[in-house]
Amino acid sequence: MSGKIRAGIVGGTGYTGVELLRLAALHPRLEVRAITSRAEAGLRVDRLFPNLRGHCELAFQAPEDAGLEDCEVVFFATPHAVALASAPRLLAAGVRVIDLSADFRLRDVAVWEKWYAHPHGAPELAAQAVYGLPEVNRAAIASARLVAVPGCYPTAVQLGFLPLLEAGLVDSSRLIASAASGVSGAGRQAKVDNLLTEVHDSLKAYGVAGHRHLPEIEQGLQQLSATPVQLTFVPHLAPMIRGIHATLFATLNDCTVDLQALFEARYRNEPAVDVLPAGEHPQTRSVRGTNLCRLAVHRPVDRDTVVVLSVIDNLVKGAAGQALQNFNIMFGLPEQTGLDAPALLP
Amino acid sequence: MSGKIRAGIVGGTGYTGVELLRLAALHPRLEVRAITSRAEAGLRVDRLFPNLRGHCELAFQAPEDAGLEDCEVVFFATPHAVALASAPRLLAAGVRVIDLSADFRLRDVAVWEKWYAHPHGAPELAAQAVYGLPEVNRAAIASARLVAVPGCYPTAVQLGFLPLLEAGLVDSSRLIASAASGVSGAGRQAKVDNLLTEVHDSLKAYGVAGHRHLPEIEQGLQQLSATPVQLTFVPHLAPMIRGIHATLFATLNDCTVDLQALFEARYRNEPAVDVLPAGEHPQTRSVRGTNLCRLAVHRPVDRDTVVVLSVIDNLVKGAAGQALQNFNIMFGLPEQTGLDAPALLP
Amino acid sequence: MSGKIRAGIVGGTGYTGVELLRLAALHPRLEVRAITSRAEAGLRVDRLFPNLRGHCELAFQAPEDAGLEDCEVVFFATPHAVALASAPRLLAAGVRVIDLSADFRLRDVAVWEKWYAHPHGAPELAAQAVYGLPEVNRAAIASARLVAVPGCYPTAVQLGFLPLLEAGLVDSSRLIASAASGVSGAGRQAKVDNLLTEVHDSLKAYGVAGHRHLPEIEQGLQQLSATPVQLTFVPHLAPMIRGIHATLFATLNDCTVDLQALFEARYRNEPAVDVLPAGEHPQTRSVRGTNLCRLAVHRPVDRDTVVVLSVIDNLVKGAAGQALQNFNIMFGLPEQTGLDAPALLP
Amino acid sequence: MSGKIRAGIVGGTGYTGVELLRLAALHPRLEVRAITSRAEAGLRVDRLFPNLRGHCELAFQAPEDAGLEDCEVVFFATPHAVALASAPRLLAAGVRVIDLSADFRLRDVAVWEKWYAHPHGAPELAAQAVYGLPEVNRAAIASARLVAVPGCYPTAVQLGFLPLLEAGLVDSSRLIASAASGVSGAGRQAKVDNLLTEVHDSLKAYGVAGHRHLPEIEQGLQQLSATPVQLTFVPHLAPMIRGIHATLFATLNDCTVDLQALFEARYRNEPAVDVLPAGEHPQTRSVRGTNLCRLAVHRPVDRDTVVVLSVIDNLVKGAAGQALQNFNIMFGLPEQTGLDAPALLP
Repeated sequence: MSGKIRAGIVGGTGYTGVELLRLAALHPRLEVRAITSRAEAGLRVDRLFPNLRGHCELAFQAPEDAGLEDCEVVFFATPHAVALASAPRLLAAGVRVIDLSADFRLRDVAVWEKWYAHPHGAPELAAQAVYGLPEVNRAAIASARLVAVPGCYPTAVQLGFLPLLEAGLVDSSRLIASAASGVSGAGRQAKVDNLLTEVHDSLKAYGVAGHRHLPEIEQGLQQLSATPVQLTFVPHLAPMIRGIHATLFATLNDCTVDLQALFEARYRNEPAVDVLPAGEHPQTRSVRGTNLCRLAVHRPVDRDTVVVLSVIDNLVKGAAGQALQNFNIMFGLPEQTGLDAPALLP
Repeated sequence: MSGKIRAGIVGGTGYTGVELLRLAALHPRLEVRAITSRAEAGLRVDRLFPNLRGHCELAFQAPEDAGLEDCEVVFFATPHAVALASAPRLLAAGVRVIDLSADFRLRDVAVWEKWYAHPHGAPELAAQAVYGLPEVNRAAIASARLVAVPGCYPTAVQLGFLPLLEAGLVDSSRLIASAASGVSGAGRQAKVDNLLTEVHDSLKAYGVAGHRHLPEIEQGLQQLSATPVQLTFVPHLAPMIRGIHATLFATLNDCTVDLQALFEARYRNEPAVDVLPAGEHPQTRSVRGTNLCRLAVHRPVDRDTVVVLSVIDNLVKGAAGQALQNFNIMFGLPEQTGLDAPALLP
Repeated sequence: MSGKIRAGIVGGTGYTGVELLRLAALHPRLEVRAITSRAEAGLRVDRLFPNLRGHCELAFQAPEDAGLEDCEVVFFATPHAVALASAPRLLAAGVRVIDLSADFRLRDVAVWEKWYAHPHGAPELAAQAVYGLPEVNRAAIASARLVAVPGCYPTAVQLGFLPLLEAGLVDSSRLIASAASGVSGAGRQAKVDNLLTEVHDSLKAYGVAGHRHLPEIEQGLQQLSATPVQLTFVPHLAPMIRGIHATLFATLNDCTVDLQALFEARYRNEPAVDVLPAGEHPQTRSVRGTNLCRLAVHRPVDRDTVVVLSVIDNLVKGAAGQALQNFNIMFGLPEQTGLDAPALLP
Repeated sequence: MSGKIRAGIVGGTGYTGVELLRLAALHPRLEVRAITSRAEAGLRVDRLFPNLRGHCELAFQAPEDAGLEDCEVVFFATPHAVALASAPRLLAAGVRVIDLSADFRLRDVAVWEKWYAHPHGAPELAAQAVYGLPEVNRAAIASARLVAVPGCYPTAVQLGFLPLLEAGLVDSSRLIASAASGVSGAGRQAKVDNLLTEVHDSLKAYGVAGHRHLPEIEQGLQQLSATPVQLTFVPHLAPMIRGIHATLFATLNDCTVDLQALFEARYRNEPAVDVLPAGEHPQTRSVRGTNLCRLAVHRPVDRDTVVVLSVIDNLVKGAAGQALQNFNIMFGLPEQTGLDAPALLP
C-alpha cells in the first residue's frame, strides 16, 4: 500500500459533507486534511457530527485558511454556485476537483442558468467537466481534472433506463419516472417544510411542474439513446431519512427480449450496480449507507410496458459515495475501495 | 332527529373494524349493536383498541350469537370469502349489507376466482351488488341491498382518472398509476414483512407483476371510458401508518383543455372530493382520518402528459369512511354525516 | 342550544393555533371570528394548513385589525412575552383571556424572569391568573378572567403525581419524572435540530441541567402536597409527531395502600382523565388527537417504589384541548364539549 | 496478518444473526463457515437479508449438517434454551462458545428458571460461563471457553452506573433506570404488537411489574458495589428500529465529587465507551451500527441526584458487536477489530 492522498472538503456542514467524512474514515488511501465552513470556522467537526468522535480530529476552517491548493484533490459539498466560483483557482493550481453540486453537470450553460437563476460564468469549465457516472464515463473520469458528480435522482433514473436505451428497446420519447426521496435529499437546512412534524407519516409529490434534476436526467439519457428522449419526472418526498426509490415506465418496442438477461449482462462487471433476481423488488434499506444501485426489471402481465425499480442511498451512490468512486477511478485505485461495507439492515 | 339505525359489524378485530367503530362513535344516527370475532369472543372491544375506551361498551361475539338478522344493516370488515358465505342469509332476512371486502367488487366472477384462488359460489349476488363509489354510482347505492365498498387503491386511482376518462381526453390504453400505501393497508396480521423493523425508514414496490386491485381498477375505469382501458399499476409500501398517494400519468389527446377547470367542475358538488388550487401538491396527512380524496392536476411543461395526484386515507375514504358514506346514502342521510371532522395535522 | 361564543386567536401559525382551529371546527358553541399573524397577514389559513380546507374561511390578520376587543374570549397561542404585552388591554376591555403560553403560569414573577430571560412587567396579572388545570382548579376557572393553560409536560406530570401527593403517600422530596415528547412540542419553527433527518429513528434527552417546565411543575405539585416538593425532571425527544409519555417514580411511605383503587377513586368523575385497568401500560397513540390523560399505576415487585405512567397528546390535553376544556368551564358548558372524539388508532 | 478463524452461527434468521454476518463481513480475521436454521435450511442467506448480497455466499443449514464441531468458535444467536441444550456438546469438542442469548447470564440458575419458565439443566456451565462485559471482565473473557454476552438493556444500564458504584458514590439501594429500546430489541418475530401500524408514532412502557433483564442487571451492578443493590427498571418501546437510551437516576452520597472527571478517568482506555463532554446529551443515532456506548453524566441544579444518560445500538454493543468484541479478546486480537466504522448519521 502506498501513501495517503491529500484531500480537502469545501462546505462540510451539510449531509454530503458528513457523509464524505464517514466514508473517508473507512478509506485506506484518502486523508482529509481540511474541511471548510465559513460559518462554523473554529468548531471541531465532531461537535457538530458526534458520529465522527474518534474518527476526525479536524475543525472547520475558513476556505482561505485551509490550504486547499496543497491538496491533490478537493471535494465540493456545497450549494450551487460555490464550486463555480472557487474551482477555477484550484484547477489552475493543479488540484483535481470533484464537485458534488450541480455547477458543472449541465453542458448547456444557458439551461443551467435558467434552472439555477444565477449567471454561470465558466462555460469552458462546464464543457471540460466529466460527468461522473462511472457506469457510462469510466475512461473519461480516470483522466479528468474536474468531475461533476451526478445528482441523486439522476443517478437512480439513468442507471435504471440505461440498458433499455442503449439497446434501443423502448420508446424514448415517452419515458416516465416516478421517484421518491428521503428527507436528507433536501439538505441540512432550517426549513419548516422538512421538520419531522411536517413530513413524518405522510407522503407528497413536489415539483411536478418542473424540477432541477430533469434537464440533467434528460441530458444523460439522451447520451445513451439514438432517438430523442423526453421524460416525465415526478419526485416525491417520503418519510424516511435516506434512500431514493425510482419507479420507471417505458413502452417496449419489442416484447420478446429477455429483459432480465439484458440487465444482468449490462451490469455484470459493474461493482456499484446489483441486478436482483427476476421477480424481486428492491427496498431502499437494502442499500442504506452503501454505494450501490439495486435494480429490478419487470414486465407486468399482458402489457407492453417495462417497469424498472431502482434504489440508491441518495447520500452515498447519490452523492458522497459516488464522489469517492470517482476519486478511486481518478487515482487508479480499485473502484469500490472503502465503499464495500454491507448496508445496515434492519 | 330520528332514531338510531341498528347495525352489526362482522369481523371487528382488524383496522377497518376499529375504524368503523371510531367513526360510528361520531355518527349521530348509527348504533352498532354487535361486533363479531370468533377468535376474540368475550373480549371487550376497548381492551383490544384502547382508543375506544369510553366510546364502546361492546364485547366481541361469535357471529351466531350476535343477532345480526335483527340489524338493519351489517358491515363486513372481513378477509375475502367471508361475506361471500354469510351475506346471502342476511340479505334473505332483509338486512342490507355493506361489504368492505373484495367479495362482490368484480362483476366477472371468473376473474375474482383467479385472483382470490377461491370458488365464488354467488355469481348472482356479484351481479346484483352495487359498486359503492358514490361519485359514480350514487343513485344505485341509494336503493342497493348489497354494496361492495371499493378498495383503497381503486378509490384513489379511479377518482383521479375519472374526469379525464369521462371527457375522453386521454389515451385510455396507456394509463399508468404509481401508488404508495401506508402499512395499515396490509391489515392487522402477524407478519414479519410488516414489522416496524422491516418497513420503517425504507420504501419498496411490490406486486409489480400483478396486484389484486388491478382488475377492480380496470373494471371501474372502463365503465367511465368510451375506449378500451389498459392500466399499468405499481403499488409501493411507504413507511407510514395511513394514507395512499397515487401518482397518475396519461397522454393527452388534446393539450388545450383547462384541466384545472375540468376537475373543479366535475367535483364541485362532491362532498368527499376536494380539488386543490392549481399548482399545489396534496399530502396524505391532509386527509388523515377523513373521508376525503384530495386531488391536484398538473401538466408538466412542454409535455403532452397529464399528471394527477390523488390522496386518501386508506382506512377512511379507502374503507370504513366510504362504507359509512354509502350507509348515509342508503338510509337517506346527508352524505358526510359523521364524516366531517378535519384531518389531524400535524 | 344557544348562540355561538365569539372568539379570537392571537398567533395562529403554530401547531397550537392550527389545533385550536381543528378543535373549534368540532365545537358547537365556539365561533372563531379572527386569527392573527403579523407575518402571514392576508393569507388564508387553509393555504397554510390544508386540513382546514372546508372548515375555516378565515385569513390571518394583523392583531390591530382583528377586532379582538369585540370577542368574548381570546386565546393566545403565542411564544412567551406576547400575551404579557397584549392581554392587559383585552382584559380591560372585558374580554376573557385564555393564554396557552407560559406568561402567567408562574406566581413568582422573579422565577419566570430567570427562566424566560425577559422582564415580566405584569406581576399583578400573574397573581390574578388562574392556573388552568381543571382537575385541581375547576371552581376558580369558572369565574376566571385570565387563565394560564398548563404546559404539556406539567399536565402529564401533575396528573400522574396528584393522587399520591394529595394522599401524602410518597416522599415528596425525591420525586423523579422521566418524560418524552413528540417533536410537535418544539413548535413549528425552522430549526435544524427538529428536521426529520435529525430526530427520526433516534432518541435523546435534553435540558437535563434544567428545563423551563420544572418550576411550573414544582409549583403545581407543591400546591398538592403538605410536605416540601423536589422533583428531578428529565425530558426526552421521541421520534414521533405528537404525544407525551411521562414515567414517574416516587418512594412510598406506606406499601399497603391499594394504589389502583386510589387512582380510580380520585379520577372517577374527571372527564379528561382515564385510569387504565391494573397492569396495563398506556400508549401515547391511545390519546392521539384527544383531550385525555391516560394513567396507569404500578408497584414493581418487592420494591417500595411506585411507578406512574401518564400519557397525553401534547397539542390537545397539553395545549389546545385543555384550553377549550377551560373555555367550556368558563362559559358554563359541559366540560368535554367538542372534545369527545376517539383517538385515531392505528 | 495470520489466517482466518473458523466460526459458526447457530440461529441465523433473527436480527442478531444478520448483524453478526454484517459485522463479520467487515472483520479481517473472522470467517463464518456455517449458519444454521432448521426452518430455512437450503435458503441462501442473502435471499432473506438482501444487504448481504455480495458479502455472504452461505445458505442456511440444519444444525446437524453444519459441521459446527470443526469450528474454533460458535456464536448462538438463538432464543433462550437453545444454547443450553447444544453448547455442552460443542464445548466438549473443544469449540469455544459465545452465547448471545440469556442462557448463561445468570449465576443463580433458580432465578433463571423462574424468569424463563424452563428447566436449566446445566448449572455447572452457568457457573463456568464468563459474563462478557469487557469493561468489567476483560481478563476472564480472554481465557473463557463459554461467554454469556450481556443483554442490551443490561449493557447500557451497567456501563452507566459502573463508575458511580465502583466509587461508592451513590445510594445503591435506590437506583432507577428508565430506558427505551427500538423495536429490533423484540426480535424478528411475527407479532401484531410490533407491526409498524402498532408502534409507529407512539411510545409506551412495558413490563413495569418485572422484566427478564432486571435480575441480570442487578446481578451485574451488585458485583460492582460494596453495598446492596436494588434497582427499579422501567423499559419502554420507542418508535425506531435500533437504539437503547437509558436514563439513570441515583442519589449522591457526596455532592462534591467531579463526576465528569470520574467518568472520563474510568473509561479513558475503554475502546467501546465514549464519555461525552460535560453538558452534552447523547443521541441513539450517534451510535447506530457501532459497538459504542456513549455516556453523559449530569447533576441537575440544586439536587443531590445524579443523572446518567447511556446510549447503545441494541444490536451491536447490545448484542452482535459485543459478541465480536468478546471474540477479539478471546482470540488475542485488538479489541475493536472490525468494529470501528463510524455511525451512520443522519
